[in-house]
Amino acid sequence: MKNLLVVSTSTVYGGEYLDYITDEMAELFKDTEEVIFIPYARPGGISHDSYTEKAAKAFDKIGKKIIGLHTFEDPIAAIKDAKGVFTGGGNTFVLVNALYKFEVIQPLREAIFNGMPYMGTSAGSNICGVSMQTTNDMPIVYPPSFKTLGVIPFNLNPHYLDPDPTSKHMGETRETRIAEFHTQNTIPVVGLREGSWLRVKGDDIILKGDLDARLFKQGQKPYEISSGKALNSELV
Amino acid sequence: MKNLLVVSTSTVYGGEYLDYITDEMAELFKDTEEVIFIPYARPGGISHDSYTEKAAKAFDKIGKKIIGLHTFEDPIAAIKDAKGVFTGGGNTFVLVNALYKFEVIQPLREAIFNGMPYMGTSAGSNICGVSMQTTNDMPIVYPPSFKTLGVIPFNLNPHYLDPDPTSKHMGETRETRIAEFHTQNTIPVVGLREGSWLRVKGDDIILKGDLDARLFKQGQKPYEISSGKALNSELV
Repeated sequence: MKNLLVVSTSTVYGGEYLDYITDEMAELFKDTEEVIFIPYARPGGISHDSYTEKAAKAFDKIGKKIIGLHTFEDPIAAIKDAKGVFTGGGNTFVLVNALYKFEVIQPLREAIFNGMPYMGTSAGSNICGVSMQTTNDMPIVYPPSFKTLGVIPFNLNPHYLDPDPTSKHMGETRETRIAEFHTQNTIPVVGLREGSWLRVKGDDIILKGDLDARLFKQGQKPYEISSGKALNSELV
Repeated sequence: MKNLLVVSTSTVYGGEYLDYITDEMAELFKDTEEVIFIPYARPGGISHDSYTEKAAKAFDKIGKKIIGLHTFEDPIAAIKDAKGVFTGGGNTFVLVNALYKFEVIQPLREAIFNGMPYMGTSAGSNICGVSMQTTNDMPIVYPPSFKTLGVIPFNLNPHYLDPDPTSKHMGETRETRIAEFHTQNTIPVVGLREGSWLRVKGDDIILKGDLDARLFKQGQKPYEISSGKALNSELV
């Protein structure tokens, strides 16, 4: 039975790293002392070691040990043996490129389908979708594919931002970008605002956090999903 | 001798499509009656025909005829014979994918190096750079490569936005994204604010418009370039 936390952002405004999601983390990883951390997304170009240290500090608060996937000689075996995995945010292109390079996409997908607890924030959530094609990130590396884990039956847009009616900026709004995605793709997209997350248990996908989410489907007007609601029935 | 207008945005706030750049357009295309329009970037998913109509209306004001590249049976020959080309904005991934599909990247590059007047706005400017890897757009299609025309010796970030000190949004700023690009790439990046453009004549690249631009180089603090200044000496 799938068991995931798919989180829009690691940090909410004014808060500490992962602070607001601590209780959910503790519940997700309750049956393991050790969590493997995937630091590949390298936010701001931070090193794998430094990023792992940052995650370790946050997990220390819930009494869990973090081990960076980059420290294993055989990352495929490490994922297969993992009792829990957390993928941090950063650049989704860099993350996906590394997941393909180290051939961990398939083992990670299988582990998640087999019930291994998984948590992702931002780029680490993006990869739960069918493809990474609704990321906000810059294409700073060229990954071998845009296909991702597909452990949820839609795509995500983390850090979702509503159009600002007072803006004088002429660049595309997030809503326009997702509409452009739907001129080329049929996959639904969930715009997950900062402070929101999805709790996935088996086939149940529940929206959590204070805010609503925005659901975009091809050929339909986007609409709001209330916090606490299951997304399952919206996606058939 | 290269002869280009590399424009951040087609439309400034409160203005009409291409209005603010009309005089520059007239000067760039003064020696031709006809300009080929590349509509491939399809902003908002608009059709090639509708987009070409929109461009035609704007070019009608300077007495030029616009012909959509999509109307030619042989787009490669059309580019080789062109007396002027304008590429409109939209989604850079969709644009670059189509340029590769129709095999016009190389002929367009050659034509520009041979002095054919070229104008690009937004995505159409992005492709003048070495790669499209500093676009703001969503990766809604998977192009065969991120390499672009390379007719200017750096990359562009059009619609450049300064970090907003009052923002409570935790997604990456444009500056952070470009810094992440420089963890993976050495190519300088010019952040071109809306209302700015580059006038390229041969090897001279002059910043025009009311605003300054922001120059990002690997391993250096980003800095401002004043409007009216040549970028040439900044890029050695």
